[in-house]
Amino acid sequence: MSHFEERLSRAQGLLVAEGVGLLVISPGANMRYLAGFTDEAGERALLFFVPPEGEPAFLVPELYAAQVEKRAAFPPTHVWRDSQGPRAALEDILRAFPGGKVLVDDAMPAKDLLLLEELLPQAAFRPASPLMRRLRMRKSPEELSAMRRAAAIADRAFQAISARPLSGLTELEVAKALEEEMLKAGAEGAAFEILVASGPNSALPHHRAGRRRIEPGDVVILDFGCRVDGYCSDITRTLVLGEPPARVRELYEVILAAQRKAVEAVRPGLPAQEVDRAARGVIAQAGYADHFTHRTGHGIGLDVHEEPYIVEGNTLPLEEGMTFSVEPGIYFPGEFGLRVEDIVVVTEEGAESLNNCPRTLRCVG
Amino acid sequence: MSHFEERLSRAQGLLVAEGVGLLVISPGANMRYLAGFTDEAGERALLFFVPPEGEPAFLVPELYAAQVEKRAAFPPTHVWRDSQGPRAALEDILRAFPGGKVLVDDAMPAKDLLLLEELLPQAAFRPASPLMRRLRMRKSPEELSAMRRAAAIADRAFQAISARPLSGLTELEVAKALEEEMLKAGAEGAAFEILVASGPNSALPHHRAGRRRIEPGDVVILDFGCRVDGYCSDITRTLVLGEPPARVRELYEVILAAQRKAVEAVRPGLPAQEVDRAARGVIAQAGYADHFTHRTGHGIGLDVHEEPYIVEGNTLPLEEGMTFSVEPGIYFPGEFGLRVEDIVVVTEEGAESLNNCPRTLRCVG
Repeated sequence: MSHFEERLSRAQGLLVAEGVGLLVISPGANMRYLAGFTDEAGERALLFFVPPEGEPAFLVPELYAAQVEKRAAFPPTHVWRDSQGPRAALEDILRAFPGGKVLVDDAMPAKDLLLLEELLPQAAFRPASPLMRRLRMRKSPEELSAMRRAAAIADRAFQAISARPLSGLTELEVAKALEEEMLKAGAEGAAFEILVASGPNSALPHHRAGRRRIEPGDVVILDFGCRVDGYCSDITRTLVLGEPPARVRELYEVILAAQRKAVEAVRPGLPAQEVDRAARGVIAQAGYADHFTHRTGHGIGLDVHEEPYIVEGNTLPLEEGMTFSVEPGIYFPGEFGLRVEDIVVVTEEGAESLNNCPRTLRCVG
Repeated sequence: MSHFEERLSRAQGLLVAEGVGLLVISPGANMRYLAGFTDEAGERALLFFVPPEGEPAFLVPELYAAQVEKRAAFPPTHVWRDSQGPRAALEDILRAFPGGKVLVDDAMPAKDLLLLEELLPQAAFRPASPLMRRLRMRKSPEELSAMRRAAAIADRAFQAISARPLSGLTELEVAKALEEEMLKAGAEGAAFEILVASGPNSALPHHRAGRRRIEPGDVVILDFGCRVDGYCSDITRTLVLGEPPARVRELYEVILAAQRKAVEAVRPGLPAQEVDRAARGVIAQAGYADHFTHRTGHGIGLDVHEEPYIVEGNTLPLEEGMTFSVEPGIYFPGEFGLRVEDIVVVTEEGAESLNNCPRTLRCVG
């Protein structure tokens, strides 16, 4: 049985168990996982339909038909032309709908969902993420192997970049250099737009790389990752140009301790929010609760951000094979920020870090 | 009045005229157009709400709050934290809902739409694209200026690449070289994944660049564009390595004539489908109707693909300031394909091409 047959069979088992009449998937990570189709969504409806029993249907715009035929795990069953639109093909597919709930890909474009709702006015539509999460959260050995390679490439890129003088470079130049290191090492590409946040920009947790030049005395946060076989890595390290002031050193020890404490807390059965609480507790005890303004982490796999989210309120018990980031940070607007992040996999005994380059506050030139 | 105030005012005018109670926009081109927010969608709900009267509401995840405050045209009105989720803030925003239809961004993730539907169970949800199309289709002089610059950069990149020997390079290497030329010339980036389709790959209209090496005798389709101030260019040219066989030369004359005929047909008031028919008529008359498997073109602006679509069935009358591609092609599976594409803007008299590099079948080394 191929990966895809096995995944389809597990998906259909869940559909039957939960009385779901149809699962509809749009291009993106879910479609890659279930149907082996790796392309992006265009504006044309391209949807994969999983019924509780029998063969899936695959609605494909004609432009993509040859590619789906050649590269996806299932053949196109309904090909539509620009001159017709997708409606008639959709009606044909939905004729077999047995009733029950319809689960739709969380990322499905609203225009496709509105059309499905119009054609199935009696059905109750729900997000597919709870089911897809159950399918995708625990990684197989093959998936973990790709993630290990992606993490190792990110580790090496960090080592290479932090050995260079950075003073005078723009954030964008450093981002470009990180990307080049990862490509050189065999990555398919960056997993997301690389973050290089220097000086006061480091206090903006979502700052991307910009034209600011890195100067002596700057704190610099590097947050980046790559893809291998579609699977992502994601790592954050903080650098300082020159000798860090005592305050920066002390604060860094706080987030490092928070990160360590959170990783050590991980074990099968633990509710995901407890990992967040472990990190947050250390930071709160040091008096900086208000400066840790984001969740502790996010699951990762085919998506950079997926379940399980490591956040207060997520009571999902951790299971072996789950992979997620642990990335506490503290931010002082107008001044600087500090963050450290590794991807870990839940093991029988606890957690194993996929990232293994040094976590110390790196002082560079 | 700023661009954004003017756009908001036009949008609200349309909402009132059509009895719409709320317009909800998600990250992407529509949000860039209406709210000046240029970032991508993450998995967190980030939505811009335009009521028929009064101030817009802006639901923003805390991580993006500083960026929205600093760079968008409107301030965040409802900031939500990971630990709370967006529901309470959404309920607060929707309290002011006056009833009537709700228009949602076509690209809004299904999970956000399902939540809106749950909170407004009585409302009728419809795609926002017809309204957004009316707002965005006719480009202002400032928008056209950005599009001209983006087209000129693509033209120059084609001239640079087609002057080089391509034999022995992979498709990916040519794509990379095109991208570098555009970046060097001041583009923000490629507008979409560059297509370099060589040899039999040229018969696949949606083939991306791959590892195939270009060989003597190959037909090579280059389809690429860049962004300037967020606005896209998109051009296709076909090359042949060495002397093309008579059949390729003759077929190329057919699509070139089809493209010319279609561009010449353009004038204000003409239904969009007539431009498609003009191109298709030439190709059908030559006996190749079945080999022209896609629409003739697509609108372009902040999106690479937007209204007006140049396709059978689209009776929308063209108006001055509309911008779209005219790109007939013919494809012989297993053998080769040919395509030529320019972006044109509708003028008082007809059409002006934004692309102006030679359209002849270029023979290269």
